[in-house]
Amino acid sequence: MGDTLVEELKNPLEVAAPLAKRMLAWTLGNPHELRLDQKQIPVPDRSEVLIRIDAVAVCATDLEVIAQGPPALINGTLPFNQGFTPGHEYMGTVAALGPGVDEYKVGERVAVEIHSGCGQCKRCRSGMYTSCTNYGQNYGEHDKRHRANGFTTNGGFAQYAVNHVNTLVRVPDDMSDEVAALAVTAGTSMYGFIELGGLLAGEKVVVIGPGPIGLLAVGVAKALGAAPVILVGTRENRLGLGKRLGADHLVNAKLCDAVEAVRSLTDGKGVDYVMDCAGTEETINQAILMCSRGGKICLAAFPHGRVGIDLGHAVMNNIYLYGIRGEGKSAVARAIALMAAKRFDATLIHTHTFGLAELPKAIQYARERIDGAIKVVVKPHLL
Amino acid sequence: MGDTLVEELKNPLEVAAPLAKRMLAWTLGNPHELRLDQKQIPVPDRSEVLIRIDAVAVCATDLEVIAQGPPALINGTLPFNQGFTPGHEYMGTVAALGPGVDEYKVGERVAVEIHSGCGQCKRCRSGMYTSCTNYGQNYGEHDKRHRANGFTTNGGFAQYAVNHVNTLVRVPDDMSDEVAALAVTAGTSMYGFIELGGLLAGEKVVVIGPGPIGLLAVGVAKALGAAPVILVGTRENRLGLGKRLGADHLVNAKLCDAVEAVRSLTDGKGVDYVMDCAGTEETINQAILMCSRGGKICLAAFPHGRVGIDLGHAVMNNIYLYGIRGEGKSAVARAIALMAAKRFDATLIHTHTFGLAELPKAIQYARERIDGAIKVVVKPHLL
Amino acid sequence: MGDTLVEELKNPLEVAAPLAKRMLAWTLGNPHELRLDQKQIPVPDRSEVLIRIDAVAVCATDLEVIAQGPPALINGTLPFNQGFTPGHEYMGTVAALGPGVDEYKVGERVAVEIHSGCGQCKRCRSGMYTSCTNYGQNYGEHDKRHRANGFTTNGGFAQYAVNHVNTLVRVPDDMSDEVAALAVTAGTSMYGFIELGGLLAGEKVVVIGPGPIGLLAVGVAKALGAAPVILVGTRENRLGLGKRLGADHLVNAKLCDAVEAVRSLTDGKGVDYVMDCAGTEETINQAILMCSRGGKICLAAFPHGRVGIDLGHAVMNNIYLYGIRGEGKSAVARAIALMAAKRFDATLIHTHTFGLAELPKAIQYARERIDGAIKVVVKPHLL
Amino acid sequence: MGDTLVEELKNPLEVAAPLAKRMLAWTLGNPHELRLDQKQIPVPDRSEVLIRIDAVAVCATDLEVIAQGPPALINGTLPFNQGFTPGHEYMGTVAALGPGVDEYKVGERVAVEIHSGCGQCKRCRSGMYTSCTNYGQNYGEHDKRHRANGFTTNGGFAQYAVNHVNTLVRVPDDMSDEVAALAVTAGTSMYGFIELGGLLAGEKVVVIGPGPIGLLAVGVAKALGAAPVILVGTRENRLGLGKRLGADHLVNAKLCDAVEAVRSLTDGKGVDYVMDCAGTEETINQAILMCSRGGKICLAAFPHGRVGIDLGHAVMNNIYLYGIRGEGKSAVARAIALMAAKRFDATLIHTHTFGLAELPKAIQYARERIDGAIKVVVKPHLL
Repeated sequence: MGDTLVEELKNPLEVAAPLAKRMLAWTLGNPHELRLDQKQIPVPDRSEVLIRIDAVAVCATDLEVIAQGPPALINGTLPFNQGFTPGHEYMGTVAALGPGVDEYKVGERVAVEIHSGCGQCKRCRSGMYTSCTNYGQNYGEHDKRHRANGFTTNGGFAQYAVNHVNTLVRVPDDMSDEVAALAVTAGTSMYGFIELGGLLAGEKVVVIGPGPIGLLAVGVAKALGAAPVILVGTRENRLGLGKRLGADHLVNAKLCDAVEAVRSLTDGKGVDYVMDCAGTEETINQAILMCSRGGKICLAAFPHGRVGIDLGHAVMNNIYLYGIRGEGKSAVARAIALMAAKRFDATLIHTHTFGLAELPKAIQYARERIDGAIKVVVKPHLL
Repeated sequence: MGDTLVEELKNPLEVAAPLAKRMLAWTLGNPHELRLDQKQIPVPDRSEVLIRIDAVAVCATDLEVIAQGPPALINGTLPFNQGFTPGHEYMGTVAALGPGVDEYKVGERVAVEIHSGCGQCKRCRSGMYTSCTNYGQNYGEHDKRHRANGFTTNGGFAQYAVNHVNTLVRVPDDMSDEVAALAVTAGTSMYGFIELGGLLAGEKVVVIGPGPIGLLAVGVAKALGAAPVILVGTRENRLGLGKRLGADHLVNAKLCDAVEAVRSLTDGKGVDYVMDCAGTEETINQAILMCSRGGKICLAAFPHGRVGIDLGHAVMNNIYLYGIRGEGKSAVARAIALMAAKRFDATLIHTHTFGLAELPKAIQYARERIDGAIKVVVKPHLL
Repeated sequence: MGDTLVEELKNPLEVAAPLAKRMLAWTLGNPHELRLDQKQIPVPDRSEVLIRIDAVAVCATDLEVIAQGPPALINGTLPFNQGFTPGHEYMGTVAALGPGVDEYKVGERVAVEIHSGCGQCKRCRSGMYTSCTNYGQNYGEHDKRHRANGFTTNGGFAQYAVNHVNTLVRVPDDMSDEVAALAVTAGTSMYGFIELGGLLAGEKVVVIGPGPIGLLAVGVAKALGAAPVILVGTRENRLGLGKRLGADHLVNAKLCDAVEAVRSLTDGKGVDYVMDCAGTEETINQAILMCSRGGKICLAAFPHGRVGIDLGHAVMNNIYLYGIRGEGKSAVARAIALMAAKRFDATLIHTHTFGLAELPKAIQYARERIDGAIKVVVKPHLL
Repeated sequence: MGDTLVEELKNPLEVAAPLAKRMLAWTLGNPHELRLDQKQIPVPDRSEVLIRIDAVAVCATDLEVIAQGPPALINGTLPFNQGFTPGHEYMGTVAALGPGVDEYKVGERVAVEIHSGCGQCKRCRSGMYTSCTNYGQNYGEHDKRHRANGFTTNGGFAQYAVNHVNTLVRVPDDMSDEVAALAVTAGTSMYGFIELGGLLAGEKVVVIGPGPIGLLAVGVAKALGAAPVILVGTRENRLGLGKRLGADHLVNAKLCDAVEAVRSLTDGKGVDYVMDCAGTEETINQAILMCSRGGKICLAAFPHGRVGIDLGHAVMNNIYLYGIRGEGKSAVARAIALMAAKRFDATLIHTHTFGLAELPKAIQYARERIDGAIKVVVKPHLL
């Protein structure tokens, strides 16, 4: 498998010739089925760019897509999207430019944002492209050109993908492929803080949940000058990583009352901002109680269905909750700027690397946290 | 009762003489007990003003204060605050000026905001005086000079009250006392819209709950140019009032699926802003489902304890929830500007007027909605 | 001239057939030359709409375009744009839809914004489409699809024009064509106030310069609740119109010291916001001195070249100056919402109407203010 | 002189006893006269704190105060303020607490902001305390309790000063007195960036003028993630310091066209933000031309009187100018957070230290840049 195909792809500049070349790509079969197929290399349309995928990280939401199909299908209006290629946390090299693109050159290394809005709904017109009201309208006569690669349009578990030029961010020469693939994660953390107001210098911040987004949220918060940054979690090794990413205080919620711990670290007043990356009934309620009056909470994760929340406490204390979706407001570009300046070491959360053919194993490592796995990266060139 | 006292008070300019004069004031006895007492007329300190109360409206939260004591006591650290005077929605006439006040003159008519912050906590320093972190720190050695008249400091069910100069707003000559007393309510609605971004012209708005705040929220939203404004409620007479206050569409949630109704009025996309003035588990979940992607919700009322909320839908759709407290950001001044320009007719929600001695009856009318009561006003001069 | 052509155009639904139909359009010859030509009716591309022009107003900047060619040419890199059709303040009826457009239907009446950004520069991605950094990049290999109809792409002194769907705003049935054509002007005023913060209720506002933008700025400011609104000008008839549009105070700068007058109307403190629609050295300096500490100034007009400005006073008093371009942030949609609610009477500034063939006369009226002309409208159907 | 006095002051806790103790303080005589006097140690009033001055830096505006008297007098309504003590960039140790202060303890080290607003004007109520409309109303019957130590109330060229509690920021143990005294300067830079939007990560920034505010602006911009940061100046040694503070590019405006240089460093588009710390006609015009469309300029310095500015270019390009006054929005606290995290090395701009008696020499060094002087610090304990 693969050798001939790889041979064909050696000159990525050729790929724009319609229908000429094929690539390897993982595709959805039935729910929970993922198989390595050959697909035509996609051709970039106006304002689009063909990316040769150099690294793609496995994210928890990939597992949901593989189990349920892309979000656009969750409402059940379409059959399960067989042939769809998931994978949204990737980076690569510009391989070809569509019409109207001169912002990049072939050969440049780029990280990506997931979302490109339709450009003509109310939210897109105001810069809120991750809140595009035409989300998932990508196909046939309903194609509004919304793109969320790996969710509603083909993603990065493949050798190539097409991205809207707006989703690209240049990668500095001295940043590794693996780290650049984490820029989407860091961008999500960054987006959360942007929406909370963006001014963290001198502010008190709690991050709940030391998963990838939470750990990088610690790095971003410290980079923006927050003090103190308190990380709340339950696993000591993850908390230890948080320490290395800059957390000033660690709170193990298994060993103490996390709310009390945060309050005692803040003269009883609570913090200015809570970034909840755990998204459980318990952590959301903790977040509300950890806030000072007038504080703000970013919900970067969420429970399914209704959960019991003490919103009365939030109202009584003028607390605002921001349920964020994605990595809008150019947050990936901002995150990469901080990463390029080496303000935090994202490599700390990269634990494993596999070749493209090993994606199932990579997913297993990520899901089961085998060997302490946090971020597992697949490099398509390592077939 | 009263005659001599009233005589004494004829010249309000005399009241600054310490301990010289007395007034009538309702005070808390034990929980649920309210009695008409004589108290010394308070003396305005630096930056404070003595107000002769001309009209004071009954609010649902007054009932809570009468039952439970001021919020500062809810934590149980103090005995029930006997002697405290509730009442927070009032207006009156400047009767005396404390040191350092030259912004007003004796004899001017003023409406009030409830909150005056300590001025030296982080929130107050940034203009968020209703989120003062020294809320309720008013007494003895812990006096941080936070003031929330009718909640933590003496309020307006009396002939006189002392207000911080920051809480005053001039009342136009052609605005009645009764309407000016509703400025606090309109200010709360206004504050909600300020926090949602303030720019309503051309935006789609839902108001849930046609109580006083909800009805005036309809008036404020229309005044700011929102289109359409959809009012959701369950009582036809209240909905009818909403229509007269400017609502473009009425949705009776008893007769239809309110979420579906709102979606069908908005091309299936939902609205930009929801102001929830009902504050139940059901209405908060409706609010989340009525929002378009990227929409915002103001929680102007709230349930007690934990309620089952579908926050996942909010996160998936980048929806933000603003739990507001009070009437900050000079919202009462803004609301009065709209009322002075006759942009909405607040008199529509004023239904009954009583004298000071009739406060228990006024409360009963408000609580039991006797005779269609919405806003019941007490005029202390009508003893 | 014209009869046959008009016949051909009777069914606007046919126009999408390429090259099939022709229309009448005014076009640039040499500088200062404008002639009525036949042109092919343009075909809407993806996300575009063909508009049958029903009314187009003459604006002072049209005169500059006719004299100098479109702004993109001012840098001298291209020859004078012969064949270009100016005219940017128009409204009309949807005549055909390009691919990907289902937001409008053929036959709907629409007002327009001037600018549609490239959608892929930094400013466009953040919602600042009037500040598109690819401004004027519309042609040939440099086509970035920026559109500023009447400035850099063909405009509305014609029977038809093509607009990006993002530039359209629905017109209510009871709003006349003439008034809807003024929505761009009102939108510019609105955009200025949006950029100043958008919250005018209860704020003190000065508008300098009772030209069309200034007069509608008075209307918009009052509609948003500003109090007082002070209009400063030099012509009594224009000031009188300002009064009818809602100005609380009129200051004739020929008859008094305008700065002193504004200060005396504001207790010596100055106002919160100044909208300068005159744009002279004198008025900008007046604006700075009319502001209170912490005040803000919108520059909606401007002088050419360097002028002597007392920026030191601005810095000493923490005053900000916002030089606005166009009508961004969906300001036309917001303005139309206020106009639809009849918050101000834009018909007051519409003074004359001509047919398409009379454009030169319409321009003369507007330029020379013949017969008290303020806004002169051309209706292409009145050939 | 001095020895006995110093003896008296050994126990700073005793100073609150009224009239009991005296201190050394430099005071204004006639214009340009400064003399070392004995004064009573001031007693902190409500919400105030007595600070033992440990370090005070000389600022260019001190020279103006010494020449002209405090700003409040510039209007000529009062005689030159003999006996006034200038000096506003200081830090020290809490020596006594006034009533109502429990936020600090005696013995804590604190840096200061200059401004404390009246707390009851419109600007103060909205958190804009540096734009207090009662600026300079500090004395006699007009005392509105505005405080700008070193400008309108006694400052830090003395052994002690009284500060409003709101102006204090804790100093970390490992930050030297000299550096903490520079926090006001860094706070001014920080305030500028806050007003420009606060989100610098990934944004392009120019700083013009490598004086103390400009050099620390480079440090703050890099700390917040700006990339690139371009420093424009004329002296190579100062540019070199800018490099050490993090500037990515240096532009010597004597050796090239600074506008062209900035444009060539930014693909011809210009930068997002310009911080002008030079404040000349030339640099302000450069700033306007260095901005991209939609860019923003902070004027942190200013020329006197009218200067020729090309505001037309600003309006045509939707450029905003922010004339900032002071160090509002808790900017000193934010700056100290970045300094505490060692994001930039403020010690680079501290060049000389003198004792209190040597203030005239310190001023001479600062004014004449003797021996490469940038920031000259006086330490009152080094008599």
